[in-house]
Amino acid sequence: MNDRPVTPILDRVRQPSDMKALSDRELRQLADDVRAETISAVSVTGGHLGAGLGVVELTVAIHAVFDTPRDKLIWDVGHQCYPHKILTGRRDRIRTLRTEGGLSGFTKRSESPYDPFGAAHSSTSISAALGFAAARDLGGDAGDAIAVIGDGSMSAGMAFEAMNNAGHLKKRLFVILNDNEMSIAPPVGALSSYLTRLYTGAPFQEFKAAAKGAVSLLPEPFQEGARRAKEMLKGMAVGGTLFEELGFSYVGPIDGHDLDQLLAVLRTAKARATGPMLIHVITKKGKGYAPAEAARDKGHATGKFDVLTGVQAKAASNAPSYTKVFAQGLIAEAERDDKVVAVTAAMPDGTGLNLFADRFPKRIFDVGIAEQHAVTFSAGLAAGGMKPFCAIYSTFLQRGYDQVVHDVCIQRLPVRFAIDRAGLVGADGATHAGSFDIAFLANLPGIVVMAAADEAELMHMVATAAAHDEGPSAFRYPRGDGVGVDLPSRGVPLEIGKGRIVAEGGRVAILSFGTRLTEVLRAAEALAAKGIKPTVIDARFAKPLDRDLILNAARHHEALVTVEEGAVGGFCSHVAQLLSEEGVFDRGLKFRSMVLPDIFIDQASPERMYEIAGMDAAQIEAKVLAALGVAVVGKRA
Amino acid sequence: MNDRPVTPILDRVRQPSDMKALSDRELRQLADDVRAETISAVSVTGGHLGAGLGVVELTVAIHAVFDTPRDKLIWDVGHQCYPHKILTGRRDRIRTLRTEGGLSGFTKRSESPYDPFGAAHSSTSISAALGFAAARDLGGDAGDAIAVIGDGSMSAGMAFEAMNNAGHLKKRLFVILNDNEMSIAPPVGALSSYLTRLYTGAPFQEFKAAAKGAVSLLPEPFQEGARRAKEMLKGMAVGGTLFEELGFSYVGPIDGHDLDQLLAVLRTAKARATGPMLIHVITKKGKGYAPAEAARDKGHATGKFDVLTGVQAKAASNAPSYTKVFAQGLIAEAERDDKVVAVTAAMPDGTGLNLFADRFPKRIFDVGIAEQHAVTFSAGLAAGGMKPFCAIYSTFLQRGYDQVVHDVCIQRLPVRFAIDRAGLVGADGATHAGSFDIAFLANLPGIVVMAAADEAELMHMVATAAAHDEGPSAFRYPRGDGVGVDLPSRGVPLEIGKGRIVAEGGRVAILSFGTRLTEVLRAAEALAAKGIKPTVIDARFAKPLDRDLILNAARHHEALVTVEEGAVGGFCSHVAQLLSEEGVFDRGLKFRSMVLPDIFIDQASPERMYEIAGMDAAQIEAKVLAALGVAVVGKRA
Repeated sequence: MNDRPVTPILDRVRQPSDMKALSDRELRQLADDVRAETISAVSVTGGHLGAGLGVVELTVAIHAVFDTPRDKLIWDVGHQCYPHKILTGRRDRIRTLRTEGGLSGFTKRSESPYDPFGAAHSSTSISAALGFAAARDLGGDAGDAIAVIGDGSMSAGMAFEAMNNAGHLKKRLFVILNDNEMSIAPPVGALSSYLTRLYTGAPFQEFKAAAKGAVSLLPEPFQEGARRAKEMLKGMAVGGTLFEELGFSYVGPIDGHDLDQLLAVLRTAKARATGPMLIHVITKKGKGYAPAEAARDKGHATGKFDVLTGVQAKAASNAPSYTKVFAQGLIAEAERDDKVVAVTAAMPDGTGLNLFADRFPKRIFDVGIAEQHAVTFSAGLAAGGMKPFCAIYSTFLQRGYDQVVHDVCIQRLPVRFAIDRAGLVGADGATHAGSFDIAFLANLPGIVVMAAADEAELMHMVATAAAHDEGPSAFRYPRGDGVGVDLPSRGVPLEIGKGRIVAEGGRVAILSFGTRLTEVLRAAEALAAKGIKPTVIDARFAKPLDRDLILNAARHHEALVTVEEGAVGGFCSHVAQLLSEEGVFDRGLKFRSMVLPDIFIDQASPERMYEIAGMDAAQIEAKVLAALGVAVVGKRA
Repeated sequence: MNDRPVTPILDRVRQPSDMKALSDRELRQLADDVRAETISAVSVTGGHLGAGLGVVELTVAIHAVFDTPRDKLIWDVGHQCYPHKILTGRRDRIRTLRTEGGLSGFTKRSESPYDPFGAAHSSTSISAALGFAAARDLGGDAGDAIAVIGDGSMSAGMAFEAMNNAGHLKKRLFVILNDNEMSIAPPVGALSSYLTRLYTGAPFQEFKAAAKGAVSLLPEPFQEGARRAKEMLKGMAVGGTLFEELGFSYVGPIDGHDLDQLLAVLRTAKARATGPMLIHVITKKGKGYAPAEAARDKGHATGKFDVLTGVQAKAASNAPSYTKVFAQGLIAEAERDDKVVAVTAAMPDGTGLNLFADRFPKRIFDVGIAEQHAVTFSAGLAAGGMKPFCAIYSTFLQRGYDQVVHDVCIQRLPVRFAIDRAGLVGADGATHAGSFDIAFLANLPGIVVMAAADEAELMHMVATAAAHDEGPSAFRYPRGDGVGVDLPSRGVPLEIGKGRIVAEGGRVAILSFGTRLTEVLRAAEALAAKGIKPTVIDARFAKPLDRDLILNAARHHEALVTVEEGAVGGFCSHVAQLLSEEGVFDRGLKFRSMVLPDIFIDQASPERMYEIAGMDAAQIEAKVLAALGVAVVGKRA
């Protein structure tokens, strides 16, 4: 439906080395071609559009000036890499982005030598680039190391740690700060205000003139005249003193959509830099595609769309998303209790807390991409008498793990962790899977760990967490839409550590923790049709376990099968520990645990990912039959 | 043997409110008393001496000026809190520091209302203080929030995240930067160089004069004349622009041992501050006690000592520490392979890498207190062709967990994690216990997870990790001395995923993972004396498991007992998963898992902590007997 764009120059570029033959004028045309191709590809696949459009010129300039893949180009987060993929031998597969068997939506080492260091989580690029630079200087792989990092990613502590170390080591290293004043949400930190001050009042036009004579732009020890040019630059730019204090040369700000300026600055930087250099580039997220530029999130992540109108094809759903249900539940609690507050680490929209913010603007804290701080800040709020809900995706909570242990659990502070994107997440793939939170939380003394089986359960768990003020708690729920059950206007607190029997049966009990319950019930139906009606239990709690319920189930069934959307070490392991300590295995029990397999699962639809994981209804059924020793033909057990 | 000091003023202070009646002159005397008492106490208990001595005047000044515990005083790390404990109602127990049932060596909420937020890991104080400030402004607990943070702690990303957020929120908040140019090791980052520039060339004497008229010192919106004073201050101090760029008012540098200056500045700050303020205080670690001042680590952590001479009583040991054996093993590998490099996060001495640094100064990277960066920097080194050993204590590796998952394991990069202080650690207590690493690592796809049973095994595991270049690996070993076995000059790589049978027996197989093997062998001896000779297996690997060995053991024994120095979710859970998936439980197996219990265990001797944990030889023996159904009298099973 969307026509392929005409891209005469891009058609001549199969890999970055082909760009060396192009004139600067042709490179400008190439950028236009890449932009058109990016829009066209994402219109077919959906995905991260705005970020890529913002770095089209920068991508062209870097590949034109540096010698990738010998020089290591590391895109922070990597969601802005579609233009990079188009230029590095992956154009023929660009319309497979984020689909099963297709290109990853992020950079990925296994996909291309032009991706020397993959990403998906933010703020890792400077650390990685410094690692390459240090390796090079010790006889490892040769070449320059270039990190491209957004202003949002720069606000994370990890980026600061890397800058601090780079400024100390003084190795030749390029950090290109892609400043678009916009990560996923508008930026919130003091650093962001600082960056804005750096370029307000510094019109690009004047600077551009200086940049064209860019041999004179770079820091000492350069040729005569460099000092004056540098001072002019700094005078115009208010001065990048913060970065200079950290030991970096600062160049900028530069208009990131002016290819001539980018080429001039990068060529000079490449020729002259001796130590770490920060190049401050101002870009516009969504640049060059009106519907993206006009969107609130600047086309951050989009479904498939019509190129002419920008209108997205939306999948219809009757049930609200878990994310929205969480927000709804939290608002209901906050209306009754003014101690309820919310904390997000730069994901107000993704976590649904934008809805909470609309209702209670003073009771939400967006701390930036800063999970470590988010957790301990929440602990401080709790110690100060509030009831903080710290909403972080499962995969990003890994960033604040020590803080969960050290600041929350050891101190028994009642921080409530709302863990979105638990389990497999679909198009974002392995890097975003929420596979480990059950395991890394449930063995921490004193925490309550819940998983919602459906959206009504989620409402109840929000209420449970709000009511539980004696210590920390966590509840997890998946990406995507609920199953369509009726929603209460507000949740009712559950009894801590009590599960529920969903269906009574015999021979086998299936112990479900989380939203696999739907598949478990399907499997139960199929089993019943075969004459084996299972008992189905929604455990609700991985910690504390419902000991009586579980031991009873073990006692009265021949087989017990646990199912959870997480890796080994979590719910199943706590059940196994209970059963072994109680001597249940002594007399024999057909015990099986269905957990995520020991592989990182690449992007696909969530349903397909769970099929690969061996956790759909048919596979649950097969597992039960195999445990019971009932012969199955043509099924994987 | 060491006489108690004479402390007339301190004797009148039972709690900080008693200080309000003291004149400034008496407060100066109080500081001297507190210093003498601190030295005396630590001479008896051992512990962190230098840090406390460096903040004696600061501690007195803060308690004299602010209204603790209504005002929340948060010591970062907390190892400098002995003077604080002496002044806040805990003097009578100060000689029980770090001992079982005694005072914690850190701040601790459950110990005193004067510890509003406990610590032990670094760089959490600003986040917590900001949490208190935000809670206060929303109707939570009243009072000011004051974080005291060292320059080393300030270099961690988490502190930056908190500063960035505080500068944005603009709430009244005090951050006292205790700059002693010395955390545990000399500081290494660019921030540290920056801080040094802030006060070199700014003699305290002149500044002191200004500080005495300190009402005029503070930022707008203050009275007339404030601007001039502020400019003078900034001119003298080179300017705290980095902090001002982040939205903080900057005051300093101040002589942290000049009580008059401290009192003047803090009184003014308390009276006038409206937003976040950074007070830069220069102190000397070990101040006022010559042996500490003269020590390389400024008396960072000490054993018991003679007050007059500073000479420490050293416990004799015939075996080298695991830490030293690791260093020795790594040096042996590095001598044969110039790709071997080492990374530490501000712990060169604690990890033994100071020895490596002496031998290979260019092949070690001390990145500062920055575990997130340390892990991803190591990943970058590995991607660049090196063989990085990233040595981090188990408890601190929690800080870099996401990086282990996202940057190392997903990319299968051969980073080697040397995990010191695995298991219970003794006097440092619950905050430093290495309880969770087996669980949070062993379910990550593609990683090799080992635990050394003795110091020779550690040598072999260093060699194994060096040889294993196909993906990530980790090996864990405890605090303290080895068991005294012969050490090879270098290790021999082990076969990946193969355990070893240490003793053959019948009825029961004990599967040990790590240094509990010594206790297991003692238990085995006692059992043999009772006619039950167990098979003893050193599993060596939690991942990949030695499936054949374990399944065979399960097949040929009535009972199988796993033992590990870690929480549930780790080795035992992987064994249970294997046994259940293989249907071993179907036919009955007396399976038991001995793991760390579901509590945070307070400080005590390591032996005592393992007794509390239920994991000494007698308890292993009792567990086996109970599993076998052999009656035991007077023993906990």
